[in-house]
Amino acid sequence: MKEKDRTMKELTPKSEDFSKWYVEVVQKAELADYTPMKGMMVIRPHGYAVWENVRNALDRRIKAAGHVNAYFPLFIPESFLQKEAEHVQGFSPEVAWVTVGGKEELEERLAVRPTSEAIIGHMYAKWIKSWRDLPVLINQWANIVRWEKVTRPFLRTTEFLWQEGHTCHETAEECEAETLRILDLYRDVCEAELAVPVLTGRKSLSEKFAGASMTYAVEALMSDGKALQMATSHNLGQHFSKAFDIRFEDRNQTLQYVWQTSWGMTTRTIGALIMVHGDDSGLRFPPRVAPVQVVVVPISIGNWKETVLPAARAAAESLRAAGLRVDLDAREEATPGWKFSEHEMRGVPLRLEIGPRDVKAGQAVLVRRDTGAKETARLADLGARVPALLDEIQAGLMAQAKAFLEANIRDAADYAEFKAILETKRGFVRAAWCGGEACEARIKAETMATIRVIPTEEAASKTDRPCVSCGGAGQALAYFARAY
Amino acid sequence: MKEKDRTMKELTPKSEDFSKWYVEVVQKAELADYTPMKGMMVIRPHGYAVWENVRNALDRRIKAAGHVNAYFPLFIPESFLQKEAEHVQGFSPEVAWVTVGGKEELEERLAVRPTSEAIIGHMYAKWIKSWRDLPVLINQWANIVRWEKVTRPFLRTTEFLWQEGHTCHETAEECEAETLRILDLYRDVCEAELAVPVLTGRKSLSEKFAGASMTYAVEALMSDGKALQMATSHNLGQHFSKAFDIRFEDRNQTLQYVWQTSWGMTTRTIGALIMVHGDDSGLRFPPRVAPVQVVVVPISIGNWKETVLPAARAAAESLRAAGLRVDLDAREEATPGWKFSEHEMRGVPLRLEIGPRDVKAGQAVLVRRDTGAKETARLADLGARVPALLDEIQAGLMAQAKAFLEANIRDAADYAEFKAILETKRGFVRAAWCGGEACEARIKAETMATIRVIPTEEAASKTDRPCVSCGGAGQALAYFARAY
Repeated sequence: MKEKDRTMKELTPKSEDFSKWYVEVVQKAELADYTPMKGMMVIRPHGYAVWENVRNALDRRIKAAGHVNAYFPLFIPESFLQKEAEHVQGFSPEVAWVTVGGKEELEERLAVRPTSEAIIGHMYAKWIKSWRDLPVLINQWANIVRWEKVTRPFLRTTEFLWQEGHTCHETAEECEAETLRILDLYRDVCEAELAVPVLTGRKSLSEKFAGASMTYAVEALMSDGKALQMATSHNLGQHFSKAFDIRFEDRNQTLQYVWQTSWGMTTRTIGALIMVHGDDSGLRFPPRVAPVQVVVVPISIGNWKETVLPAARAAAESLRAAGLRVDLDAREEATPGWKFSEHEMRGVPLRLEIGPRDVKAGQAVLVRRDTGAKETARLADLGARVPALLDEIQAGLMAQAKAFLEANIRDAADYAEFKAILETKRGFVRAAWCGGEACEARIKAETMATIRVIPTEEAASKTDRPCVSCGGAGQALAYFARAY
Repeated sequence: MKEKDRTMKELTPKSEDFSKWYVEVVQKAELADYTPMKGMMVIRPHGYAVWENVRNALDRRIKAAGHVNAYFPLFIPESFLQKEAEHVQGFSPEVAWVTVGGKEELEERLAVRPTSEAIIGHMYAKWIKSWRDLPVLINQWANIVRWEKVTRPFLRTTEFLWQEGHTCHETAEECEAETLRILDLYRDVCEAELAVPVLTGRKSLSEKFAGASMTYAVEALMSDGKALQMATSHNLGQHFSKAFDIRFEDRNQTLQYVWQTSWGMTTRTIGALIMVHGDDSGLRFPPRVAPVQVVVVPISIGNWKETVLPAARAAAESLRAAGLRVDLDAREEATPGWKFSEHEMRGVPLRLEIGPRDVKAGQAVLVRRDTGAKETARLADLGARVPALLDEIQAGLMAQAKAFLEANIRDAADYAEFKAILETKRGFVRAAWCGGEACEARIKAETMATIRVIPTEEAASKTDRPCVSCGGAGQALAYFARAY
């Protein structure tokens, strides 16, 4: 890996070419790599460790909300996908098909799951008999395949990792409540763990999940001013229960179709972490999801292995014992300066430097990745100071991202202003919409902006302004943006 | 689910028809269910929770041994599989092939990974340049597809879940040491977590992994006397590094091929838990991997909701606070007796009963699943007594399985005795083998027994007896058995 190291510092500035910066930082920080198969990437250890942290944070919340995990098959018979009309129409263009098993041509093609409603619906019909079996609150961690034409690491790949929740309820009200409860759970993960502030709300019907009654989403703003969908929560109504005959005997001994939700969050969230927090020196991971929270770098001067290394090792050990994720970078072949830029590239939130004079003074230097601020701390105080500093960094990244989001939500009174904002500033444009698909389509064609969310709360979406496109009666305030 | 509940107690006795008992207990305990696709199962929440516990126990050890997790693509181009001759020959008969992506026929077929050496080998060739990059210690948690003809839930399924480790080393010695270190890690997981005692050793060449120099395995004995391979650790030598050109500049600036290992443990381990510990009443999970460690059953007599339920709830809460996995079964529609058999079926290690008189006496009744033994404990002492009792149950299940294993390892001096043991008693037969493939094949054809392991330690495999088949010079003592 030495050749690549030499170019470590040659990162295209973020402000110069955001796309190029993104692709470079993904590779230089060793988050992911390309494979010979178009659109399929390897998630390298540094990237996968982020996913493990995101996954654990999400899994903990999903379980605390009463859900259990299960595992359904990777393959779905073609006839199952076809049972729900909108669903097959939406997904069949991007399905990878298994047609041969062992040496034999299959009688029926098997879809590599693009999502699992169809196979799960089939099983639920078998398992659910009575209202006493409800609610069913099942989640699955799985790999998903969608044959994408244009791909980009983490953001859009042929295969990705995700969780997909699939729940069944007795009533429409309970079902809607679950959909919104999960939406809020996703918001919480984004904000509390990823330090990514989000907008939440419903999608327009043209942007909803194929087969859903209503799709809700959490949307974030990347630092190039484009939006990224962080997760979706779907109210499926009775679409799939009718297609798969998932019925239960209700409290009055009448057969009813169950009400269903489904919801997912993917490895795409890693793309958001890169694009929201990264800077010209590389990644800046929020401490809660950072693979390494603190890197200890002994300053290699003179007989440092005798003088400095033992103190560096002791500091690393004591922080590990306090439950932190700590690396000690004691490589001999790299200079301290080299190590500093490498760990900056890789997004380590906090660097702890110890040199010969520090050892004598019983102290260490702490350098924040987010601000570059330095401070000196006594070795004996590290166990208290470092966790507090990590909390400050987490809060600092959140505050910075939140200020950026808020500064980039702009109201457009008319179409000229709407277009001007998107051309010159991007970000979210809040504007009144008549609810018509024609206006939505025109805006998309002319500005490349789509409705990202319409606020769920009545008050936040209410408007007396005319539709920004046709001038007709505005039905709701919507957040528009160009998006990934 | 009420229809099924009614037949809960009608479990075929284990001693009467082991195969039937197995399939019934898998379904009645809701560990897994069949899907319309042959050989593909759903792992239901109760089964998946076991896998989560096994996975966490294994992942913790893999990481503690210095490995990191990553994620490689699900698909492998056909040409990659073909690069290692033995590998493609071994796996191609059981590969599922993707031939269509979206609407288009693919130019090259993609294998749904039957194992990942080929795609990982390709990436390693790109990443590894110098001895400083070694060792590479990467593990992956993934789903695997092998087109199996005869399938059985958990034991042999078309899709299964596993971890696969793939490491690269500078020297042959380091590589062999890693192979054996992992073998011991697997032994430890089996014995310390699953309470399944195992034999460890190498496989004969005819039973090794397609493409390996040597395969090592941990083998357990099921209670019907058949062996089950719990995990394998392969020394791949330079087979794949030569096929994929994975070379590094060594300490003398010479290009060398890396030495590799690969190793895996799968959802099959759940099959072992069922078959080693289960009894006529259902499952008996060892506490360390049990989804639920303690079930609290309030005895529903009179106004139990006022008198008993609060005490039951408090007991459950206090045990949960102590870090245990606890269920409170407060269902109104089921009788206590009904609940007892249901939780016995599902393998909950410990039942805590509280009735009106117990509440008055400030006590509870604890009933062990493994022995049926009952004892009374003061409510105030539960926090100390229950964890201790769970440790006793864990140790008790291990002792029982170990006694069974030891009683079922028999020495055969000649072929008549060898055949008689397999016909009448099964279990492991320890016998001398000349090392010849002809004898191995004859034994398999005539007795259905294969060499499960040859002990790794020189002393344990040494023999001066003649080969049990041909009477020629015995090269090693081997453990033979019929196997799943």
